[in-house]
Parts: sequence; C-alpha cells; structure tokens
Amino acid sequence: MYTLLSKINGPDDLKKLDAEELTPLADEVRSFLMENVAKTGGHLASNLGVVELSIALHYCFNSPKDKIVWDVGHQAYTHKILTGRRDSFHTQRCYKGISGFPKRSESPHDPFGAGHSSTSISAGLGLAVANALKGGDARSIAVIGDGSLTGGMALEALNQAGHLKKNLIVVLNDNEMSISKNVGALSSFISRKMTGTYYRNLKKEMEGLLAGIPAIGGNILHFAKKAENSLKGFLTPGTLFEALGFEYVGPIAGHDIQSMLAVLENVKRLEGPILVHVMTKKGKGYAPAEDMPDKFHGVAPMKPASAAPAKPAPPSYTQVFGDTLVKLGEKDDKILAITAAMPDGTGLTPFAKRFPERFFDVGIAEQHALTFAAGLAVEGFRPVAAIYSTFTQRAYDQVFHDICLQKLPVTLALDRAGLVGDDGPTHHGAFDMSYLRHLPELTVMAPKDENELQHMLKTAIYHGRPISLRYPRGAGYGVAMDKDPKGLEVGKGELLVEGSDLTLVAIGSTVYPALEAASMLKQKGIFASVVNARFVKPLDRDLILAQAGRTGCVVTVEENALMGGFGSAVLEAVADAGMTAVRVKRIGIPDKFIEQGSQAQLRADLGIDAAGIAATCQAFLQGAGSAHPQLTVVK
Amino acid sequence: MYTLLSKINGPDDLKKLDAEELTPLADEVRSFLMENVAKTGGHLASNLGVVELSIALHYCFNSPKDKIVWDVGHQAYTHKILTGRRDSFHTQRCYKGISGFPKRSESPHDPFGAGHSSTSISAGLGLAVANALKGGDARSIAVIGDGSLTGGMALEALNQAGHLKKNLIVVLNDNEMSISKNVGALSSFISRKMTGTYYRNLKKEMEGLLAGIPAIGGNILHFAKKAENSLKGFLTPGTLFEALGFEYVGPIAGHDIQSMLAVLENVKRLEGPILVHVMTKKGKGYAPAEDMPDKFHGVAPMKPASAAPAKPAPPSYTQVFGDTLVKLGEKDDKILAITAAMPDGTGLTPFAKRFPERFFDVGIAEQHALTFAAGLAVEGFRPVAAIYSTFTQRAYDQVFHDICLQKLPVTLALDRAGLVGDDGPTHHGAFDMSYLRHLPELTVMAPKDENELQHMLKTAIYHGRPISLRYPRGAGYGVAMDKDPKGLEVGKGELLVEGSDLTLVAIGSTVYPALEAASMLKQKGIFASVVNARFVKPLDRDLILAQAGRTGCVVTVEENALMGGFGSAVLEAVADAGMTAVRVKRIGIPDKFIEQGSQAQLRADLGIDAAGIAATCQAFLQGAGSAHPQLTVVK
Repeated sequence: MYTLLSKINGPDDLKKLDAEELTPLADEVRSFLMENVAKTGGHLASNLGVVELSIALHYCFNSPKDKIVWDVGHQAYTHKILTGRRDSFHTQRCYKGISGFPKRSESPHDPFGAGHSSTSISAGLGLAVANALKGGDARSIAVIGDGSLTGGMALEALNQAGHLKKNLIVVLNDNEMSISKNVGALSSFISRKMTGTYYRNLKKEMEGLLAGIPAIGGNILHFAKKAENSLKGFLTPGTLFEALGFEYVGPIAGHDIQSMLAVLENVKRLEGPILVHVMTKKGKGYAPAEDMPDKFHGVAPMKPASAAPAKPAPPSYTQVFGDTLVKLGEKDDKILAITAAMPDGTGLTPFAKRFPERFFDVGIAEQHALTFAAGLAVEGFRPVAAIYSTFTQRAYDQVFHDICLQKLPVTLALDRAGLVGDDGPTHHGAFDMSYLRHLPELTVMAPKDENELQHMLKTAIYHGRPISLRYPRGAGYGVAMDKDPKGLEVGKGELLVEGSDLTLVAIGSTVYPALEAASMLKQKGIFASVVNARFVKPLDRDLILAQAGRTGCVVTVEENALMGGFGSAVLEAVADAGMTAVRVKRIGIPDKFIEQGSQAQLRADLGIDAAGIAATCQAFLQGAGSAHPQLTVVK
Repeated sequence: MYTLLSKINGPDDLKKLDAEELTPLADEVRSFLMENVAKTGGHLASNLGVVELSIALHYCFNSPKDKIVWDVGHQAYTHKILTGRRDSFHTQRCYKGISGFPKRSESPHDPFGAGHSSTSISAGLGLAVANALKGGDARSIAVIGDGSLTGGMALEALNQAGHLKKNLIVVLNDNEMSISKNVGALSSFISRKMTGTYYRNLKKEMEGLLAGIPAIGGNILHFAKKAENSLKGFLTPGTLFEALGFEYVGPIAGHDIQSMLAVLENVKRLEGPILVHVMTKKGKGYAPAEDMPDKFHGVAPMKPASAAPAKPAPPSYTQVFGDTLVKLGEKDDKILAITAAMPDGTGLTPFAKRFPERFFDVGIAEQHALTFAAGLAVEGFRPVAAIYSTFTQRAYDQVFHDICLQKLPVTLALDRAGLVGDDGPTHHGAFDMSYLRHLPELTVMAPKDENELQHMLKTAIYHGRPISLRYPRGAGYGVAMDKDPKGLEVGKGELLVEGSDLTLVAIGSTVYPALEAASMLKQKGIFASVVNARFVKPLDRDLILAQAGRTGCVVTVEENALMGGFGSAVLEAVADAGMTAVRVKRIGIPDKFIEQGSQAQLRADLGIDAAGIAATCQAFLQGAGSAHPQLTVVK
C-alpha cells in the first residue's frame, strides 16, 4: 500500500526519489496520516494541508544540517514521518510514545520544539545568526502559519530579522485559518489575492494616473501625492514584508510540489531574509476536513462503526462555562467575552452567536487580549477572557501591569488547567496557581465540579476586582446542576467531611479524588476531614487552620506545581499562625516537566488520584514521607 | 515667570487661551519641566519632545471625556502639568508624591496607567470599543512612541484595531529613538522621510514605467509585475498602517502647534482607526539633551554647583555585570549578549563596543529576545540576556516554553530586582523569585554583593543549563573584588555566622542587612546564625536544615514577594523534611503593591533593613508575630 513511503527512513531516502514520484508519495503520506490519526487522534486538518510543503522542504533542503523550525508544531506530522518516525507514528500522542509536536529530544531533525504559537521566527533567527557567527552555510527555515503571525512575538522577530539581514527563510503557510477562521487586519491583507479584478482595477488606476500627467506640469509633489493615492489598492501581500526588509516570493501554490521545488531551489541561492508565501488548504484531500477545518483541527480517535453506543458523557467544564456565560449574558449586557483565536476550544461559540457585538476574537494575541479587556473594564464593562492556562502564561505581565495593579474587574477564565493529557508538557496547565497567587489584588479560585464552576463564574463576574478561575480539561462529573448560578462568598471554603486523624485540603479537580481517598482511608480506620478550599487566594485560613489544629496533620492536594502552589499557601498560613505542632504534607505536580499520557494515567503516576492520595496520607500518618516515589523530595 | 502656565489648572483653562498663546505656553512648560526635573530627577528628554504634542492634544480633545492613553507613560509630564498636577509636580517620583507615570488613582485624566511598554493601543482599543458599545461619542487616543511599536503586543493591537474599525486614534510619536537609538526594520521603514531625493527617485521610476508602456501591449499581468517592481521604492511610512486598515495622516511636524491643531481638528471628524504620525525630537529645546537624548532619558536630581564633591560611589551592580561580561567575553567567543532596547541601562554598552558582532539589541521585545537566545543556545553559544526583573515578566512563557522545557543554556540576567525606588510599583522587581522558582530545570540565584555577582555570572554562563541571576538597582557595597570571576558550586550556600538562638537565612540584597541585624541582636544577647543562601533553587537544604535543626528557629529574608518566594521555598524544605519542631518566620515584600520612594525608605517601611530584621527576629523569638505592622498576616 505504501510503496514509496515504506522506503523513506530519512531525508536521504526521500532525495533518492525522482521529483515526479513526490506527488504519488504525497498521496501515500495523506493516506498514512488519515489511517493513523483515526487511531490515535490528533491534529488532522493542519497536517493534511502541509503534506506537499513538508515533502518539498525536505527534498530541497538538507535536514538536519539545514534547520527546519515548525511554528506551534501540530502540523509537523509529515515532517516526522519523513524523518525516521514513520514506524513509531502510531504511538504519537500516546503515553510514552512520540510527541504530537516537534521535540528536540526526539530527533536531530527537530532543532527547536514547539507547542505554543509564534516562536519559530525568533528561534529560526537565533539559529541563522549562530550559523553566520560560525561561518557555516546551513540554512534556517521557519515555517509559520498566517494565524501564528498575529502573535506579537512573531512580529518582534520579523522586525529584527529584517534589520539583521542574515540568511533566514520564513515560509508563510497561508491557509487563512488559525484553528478557527483567522481574524485581524493583517490576515485580510495577506490573503488579498491576485485576481482578475485586481489587475483590471490596477489598469484603470494606471490609466487615470497617466491621463492626469499633462495637467500636473512641474509640480512633482502634487503628482506624487496623486500617484500614491491612486495606487493604494496596488499594494500586494508582499508589500508588508518588503517594508520589513524581507525579500518576498509568492504567493505559490502549496499543493503543487513541482512548482514549489522550482521556487525553493531558487530561494536556496538567495541571501538575506526571505519570505516565501505558500497558499495551502487546511484539510486538503479529505472533503469533510476541507469543508469544516475547524472541526477537524484536533480529532479524537475514531470508533469503529460497530462499537456499542457510549453512555452520553457529562458536559465538559468548557461547555458549562460557555453555557453559563450565555445565561448570565442574557441578563446583563455589560458582560463581554474575549478569546485569543479559540472560540470553540474555550466554549465561547454559543456566546459569540448569541451576542456577536459583545464577543471579541483578538487572534493569537494573549497579551493584547488581557490589556484590551482591562480597557473595557475601565468603562464599566465586565469582560471575561477565556484562555487556556498554559497560554495565559504569555500574558503574565499584563495580568500584573494592566489588571491587578489597576484593580480592574477582569475575569480570567483559565481552561485546561492541570494535566491536559495527550498534548503533553507544552500544554499542561501546571503552573497557574503558582504564577497567579503572588500577584497582589488578584483572587484565585478553582471549582470542585461543574456545578461549582457556574457559581464561581458568576462570583467572578460580579466580584468587581481582578479574579481568576481555573478548571480542567474534559468532562465534569455529571453532578446535578443548580438551576441558576449564584455568587459564592469570596475567601470561604467548605468543610465536606469532618474527621479526627488528618485534614485533607484539596482544591479544584482534586476535591473529588480527596473525598474518595477519605472513603478509602475510612475503611482502614483512618478518619480524615476533607476541605474544599475553593480559593487559593484569599485562603480560608479560619477553616483550614481550625481543621489543622483539630487533627494536627494536614495533607494538601492540588493539580499544580508543588513549588509555590496551593500547598505552599497552606504552609505559609500554618507557619504565619505559628502552629508548629501541625505537620503538613503536600501532594501535587513535582518539580519536573510532565510528559504526555491520558489524564487518568498521569494523575495515577503522580499520585494525585484517590488511590495515590490515600496511600500518601496513610504513609504520612505513619510518619514516613510519601508512599509515592514521585513525591519524594527532589534535591 | 509662568504667566500663562500659572493660569492652567485643567484642560478647560487651556482652552480659554488663544491658539497663538500656545507657543509661548510651550516655552513656559519647557522651563517648568527643566526646573523641576533638575530637582526631582526623572525622565527629561522624552518629555521635552512632547510638550507641543501634549498641549495640542488637550487643546483639541476634551479630557477626561476623551481618553488620552500614554504608552510607557514616562513622557506624560506635560499632560500631568496641564491636568491639575502643576502644583504637586515638584513631588513627582518622591516618596508619597505623584507618580512619574500616568496612574488611574491620581487623576480622572489618566484613564489607563502605564510603566511598561507597548500597552496603549490595546487599552485605547478597549476604551474605544466600550464607548461604541455605550453609543457614546468620546474619542480614544493612544499615544505611542516608535520604540514602543517594536513591542509585539502593540502590533497585536494594531491588527485587531484595523479589523474592528472602531474610532481609535493612534498618535505615533516618532523620534526615531526608544531609550537608545531605535533598532529594527520597522523603525527604519517608518522613519523613511519625504525628502527631495525621494521624489526625484519617484519621478524617475514613473518615467521609466511610462516609457515601457507601448512595449507591454495587451499583457496586463506583465505590466502589473513591472509596475510593482518599479514602484517598490514608492512605499511611504503610511503604507504599512494602511495595509493594517488604518487611515494614515502625516508625517506632521511635532513642534509646530498650529499645524498640529489643524491636523487634529480634521482627525477629530474622521471615523474608524486613524494613525497620526508626528515627528518629534527627543530633548527638544535643551541642547545637551537634543545631542545625547539617551544620556538624558532619565536623569538624577542635579546637585548645586557649590555642593561638596561626593565620595565616589562604589560601582553599581549593573556596571560590575557589564564589565565582567566583557572580561569573560575576551576569553570565550561563544559568549553573546542580548538586550531589549536597553544597552545602557543593563550595562551592556561596553560589551557592545568591544564585540559588536556578538551583541544584539532586539528592540523592546522581551519575548523575542529570550526565544532568540534559546535559538543561539541550540547551536552551542552561551547567550546572556540582560533584562530588568519587571520587564522579564513579559517573557515568562518563553522562559518556560523555549528555555526550560528544552533545557537550553541561556543565562537570564535580571537587573533591577527587588525595590527599585522612584519608579514605583510598575518597576519594582518584586516577583521574579516567585515566578521563576516553580519552573522545572531552572536554577535561580542572587548574589550578596558585587563580588559574588561576578562569580555568579561566570557560574551561570558555564552551567550548561537554564539559569537566572537577579541583582538589585544601584551601587554595590564597595567590597574588594577578586581578580577573576570564578565558578561557584551550584546549590551551595554559605554559612557566614554561626549562632545558637536562631538562623537568619537571607538571599541577595538582604544578606548584608541580615548580617548587620545579627550584630544588633548580639548586642542584646541573641546569637543568630546567618546563612547566605545564594540559590533559591536548588536550595541548599543540607546547610539550611542543619542550621534550622540546631537553632529551632528560622527567619528568612528576601527582597521579593512573600507569596511563593524564597521564604516559601525554605518553608517547603522544612515541611518536606518533617521538621515540625522548627518555627519559621518570613520577612519580605507583603502581598500588596509597593509605592515609590527611595530604596532605603521602602526597605525600612517594609522592615527588610537591618533594624527591621533585628526587631522581627527579637519579637519572633519572644513568641510574638512580627514586630512590624507591615508584616502581619494579610487576610
């Protein structure tokens, strides 16, 4: 079936093929992708769009000497298949398998890892400058989508690259999409096509200009102004990049390998910064994905048709968030919603449809998103910015400088907080409690289930000050939902179980596992209090310290970094209260990057599931450290 | 002396003047600025550059209904003087005085505060959208320098503003400088002037084009391509902004009030996003500042000529850093230096002069700076990125995603860590230990004095993994400098004094105050161990826990947020070791924003000077909480 592909174990094998064989190879790669992604899940549409581009780049350049840096990296599947990872490709995004993103430790053909957006030009420029300093002739190629180009750091990098004039090739993979339809003036401009209309208009403008010449006489200034105005429509996509000091090549057809090869062979011989504009179609070759590329951006493994119908899953946290926001929005037109290019992923599509005027997709631009929200809040609106925990890291300074310092009532809704599963270390929301907790004026909370999420969202929106809530990826527990969201008292946790032997203090996604652990401990004759802390900040000191004092033994549980996280907040409270008799043990994410795997698997590995919590509690009560090897102190 | 200015207590008074009186008013403002900044210190050159622009904006628009948002904000002095803060202006940047930046709590004329760069377009767009949603007719005006425009978030905001088409006026204050001479392709492009040469070239191009027409015949595509190539040089600064959906007006002369008024009155009547390009001269009207605007960016209070010659101050940390980097760079050409538009401020100018090929000023672009550094590190170089602690917040995600996750040997040199003094809350480096400590793979350290700084810099550069060092603003202690920098053992602190009653564990700038506190305590018969921790991570557990066990009582001291900071790391270590008998008290920056004032004043206020440390230790030993009201537990 894979006559050509089966022979490709690296770029050298690819180069042995005749150029004419590359088109049938592309067909094989596409079949291979479809077959495998159906099994493992993963990013489909973006990968189908760059099959030919990936083949052309590897045929033309010499990886790993030449460096190909993929932005975001979820479109690097063909690259992986061509660079020795065909046979392990069925393990991609699986526990202990290969990553769904480029990864330095995985292959010398991955010179720079990714996962977050808009980093490739910076990294590629670093590689290009390093090569120039060493006097080498390796080429540095950054492949970036038009969506990623809306991220500010990509523009920062273009600015320096155009100035430095080193040999950097930026391949703009223009599919007019990020995950959803692209937004922003830049995208509209770049996608301006060279249509017949374009040239007809140009001709008309030029004729008008020429006709005016006799009348102008000697006034060259007047002529220049008139010429400039006449020719405004004359700007091509390349104008922008040329203005920034790049040589612009394109647009070229991204599914025609032969013409791409011709262009790339030329580009190889050019010096300085070059931008190659390649037009591709997201989902190319698979009709459903071509029609609805946003629905096929990331896909779950497909079930065989014969499989028994699954029990309907409870609604996801994302969905409850989105639905609650619509419900609150119906009653209050001051509520606004903001996404950074992920209306579907963050559950905001229903809000966007219901209140298009009150919904803002700012592009892949988390920094701008939050300062824009702060500006809206100044004027009395109640902006809710929904961004994944890991991507909010991009806007840490804006949370500090524009929101907290000015005490502006922006709601930060951090989706995908904690362990996210298959996407791995670039995407886990492992740090938000640690990076938000120390910012003055900010309230930091996390709901134990989807019902508490709706209440916390209302609490946040009407808090009148900076506030964040984080919630996990995936389905809720299917708990009964109160009819209406209601405000919670800020800074108050809840005592779920009262015991005598130890106090489990849990937050967010770890509350139910802690409850289950308490049940397991009870069977062994150990009676644990269970506190749902609700707030990382302000911490409910009264409740936590009272329980700590009663039991003399506290175990904190969080799905966040142990360093500086929720457990540290409890430690601080206990120490500040001078309660030296109280022993504290913290359970959470240790000081290392967590690899990919299912959420359940990873939680079990780290001992933050019910069994792990129960085992650690038991060992801790018996005076040992942790029952769990992952939780031993890292030097 | 200030005949006109003395009558201006707000924009309404300004509007009572005839337009012809505004030019003499500008002269008075300039004198007033010079007189006052000579006394208080502050940003001089940037403010002299926008006197006329500030007057024209307030004469033409109606603040506070119309919102004027100043980017960075260190150029808002004239704005402050005109909006009711003339009489308090002599207190600017002083303890309990008015801020050196726009500040919402200070005046209704400051709709959005600043301090960090590149936020004004995002905030201004938020205000503009809010106004549109309310159906109001207020105008939103973002004033941004061409330097700030190199910051990615400004470009993210332009992208959305050009797309949304709301009424937003962006005033580009183009002085071809950020703090230093501007860098980057964008800046070169924007500053392309409309010279005679420009028009002569244009005429030549047009003539060539016209001459070619008969030969083209019916081939309009060929004609179009030829026309486009001919007219590449025809692009004006406005091209870029028009491409992004802005109406472009300018460039206009920024020191000619009458012509600015004429333009602004026109602009007021336009709809949609408009960019007004104003050419100004940094330092205008003060010859030394015009000649060397970077030297007059921020100035210290000037001493009267009669003052006794001051004792020469010890070299600053910044200077020791810069000199050491040159020294190390002489021996190792793999060492590279990176700044984000602050070669002077970060002490890199000597390195830049000595090794121009190995020095990179990336513009105001901290995000790109660190990923660019990561790219250089991939290729075996040893990049050192010197950025202020507060500005490194912009690149938190890049530290995570590009440096730590890939274990790349980039040195983060965080200058101005801790309390910076007069610049106040936007500029204090209060959080870096907290926001860096929880990132896996990162080593976090701080030297006790300038001699240790040189050793830590060498340690960092040859560590071969991600590493940060933070050091304070201002002069070192004048300690003897070892002849050569030497590597320190990573993760090892030093025991400076051994006592029996308690253990002071200090880091960085608090080590000497802790030593002094120990001396003060000794006088009262209290014997304290003093540990210089050196490393926040990895913490020297052996040393700290041994001393903790000996004395049973630990006081940590840091010039960083108490939440999640160094003291919390010690708490975690003590708890993880199960040392319940040990009491721990943490001294540091409490959970609030710290206002401006001298470093000495602020440290005394917060009890992190020697006297405060000694008092807290004594009270802690006596079983009370903190002797210091600032350190009591905040609910």
